[in-house]
Amino acid sequence: MRFFPAPVEKLIGYLERMPGIGRKSAQRIAFFILSLEEEDAAGFADAIVKAKGAVHCCPVCQNLTDAELCSVCANGVRDPSLVCVVADPKDVAAFERTREYKGRYHVLHGVISPMGQTGPDDIRIRELIARVTEGGVSEVIMATNPDTEGETTAMYISRLLKPFGTKVTRLAYGIPVGSHLEFTDEITLMRALEGRREI
Amino acid sequence: MRFFPAPVEKLIGYLERMPGIGRKSAQRIAFFILSLEEEDAAGFADAIVKAKGAVHCCPVCQNLTDAELCSVCANGVRDPSLVCVVADPKDVAAFERTREYKGRYHVLHGVISPMGQTGPDDIRIRELIARVTEGGVSEVIMATNPDTEGETTAMYISRLLKPFGTKVTRLAYGIPVGSHLEFTDEITLMRALEGRREI
Repeated sequence: MRFFPAPVEKLIGYLERMPGIGRKSAQRIAFFILSLEEEDAAGFADAIVKAKGAVHCCPVCQNLTDAELCSVCANGVRDPSLVCVVADPKDVAAFERTREYKGRYHVLHGVISPMGQTGPDDIRIRELIARVTEGGVSEVIMATNPDTEGETTAMYISRLLKPFGTKVTRLAYGIPVGSHLEFTDEITLMRALEGRREI
Repeated sequence: MRFFPAPVEKLIGYLERMPGIGRKSAQRIAFFILSLEEEDAAGFADAIVKAKGAVHCCPVCQNLTDAELCSVCANGVRDPSLVCVVADPKDVAAFERTREYKGRYHVLHGVISPMGQTGPDDIRIRELIARVTEGGVSEVIMATNPDTEGETTAMYISRLLKPFGTKVTRLAYGIPVGSHLEFTDEITLMRALEGRREI
């Protein structure tokens, strides 16, 4: 049985499908939307349509963009010989927040996951190989997540890139800054030991 | 600095304003929306506009509806002499879920709150008085929340209704079903004692 008017139930239905939003939150948000000014609600609806319609993948690095090239690829100052390979556009944002990385990116839009039935052809590996084949790339940094799927993807790609003679590197493993050794898991600690450097 | 394309940032901005959604959740939801099929995203946007446009307050009970009268007021079987006064349309849904209440409702759309600068004229009290003045209402059940503001509102309205000779009742206080006495706060326990009944 439905206790809210049909248009409200429909909106709740859509909201419930969003990640991290359950029935109760969806109700709260739906009522919040009803309490908005007419133009704000219309603006919200418009933002959904516009984001969906205007955003596509950068033809070079596959990052999301609403322009012809993404802001990194369009920036002549960024080093095109250094390519950081990430799984997701959100990872690009994470690197950009450091304000330190001056190279370019390649967004895979996923990782190889036999469990999730994602094979190498389902993510943007082909586009990366094409970029390296074109030349001008001296180093590829594999920056997938440090989990099984991320590792598998990094290994798979590094093997594909070997014939091109391009340097392939992996992000350093180690203890996160600000953490406590006491609470660091054994594998991380082992990797931190392995990767120790002279100071 | 913005790390996502402008239309995506705009969508994130709208999502962040929703109750219970922070920056991270807003990002996740925005990317989820980008991953939707074109027609699903359009449907979501449309649901917002339709909910906002089609839903208004029932002229009798002030509950939300997309029809001329709300489903309760339009239902001839529901007893018009019994009016349950609630603060919010969500409270109507809570009562309807019990499937026990056979009377009608009156939605105040808020409670009197000197701190929140909501006075008696800011909520739908006038409409309730008009309903009682018209006649045919034998009992008004005050079902505002059992907190200071809900109590104040209930007391205020019951005093206004006194001259009409209408019976005004308040929901019972007591221990919630399935709870433990051990963890019940003193005030609730005191009210449960006061309201004890013969079995």
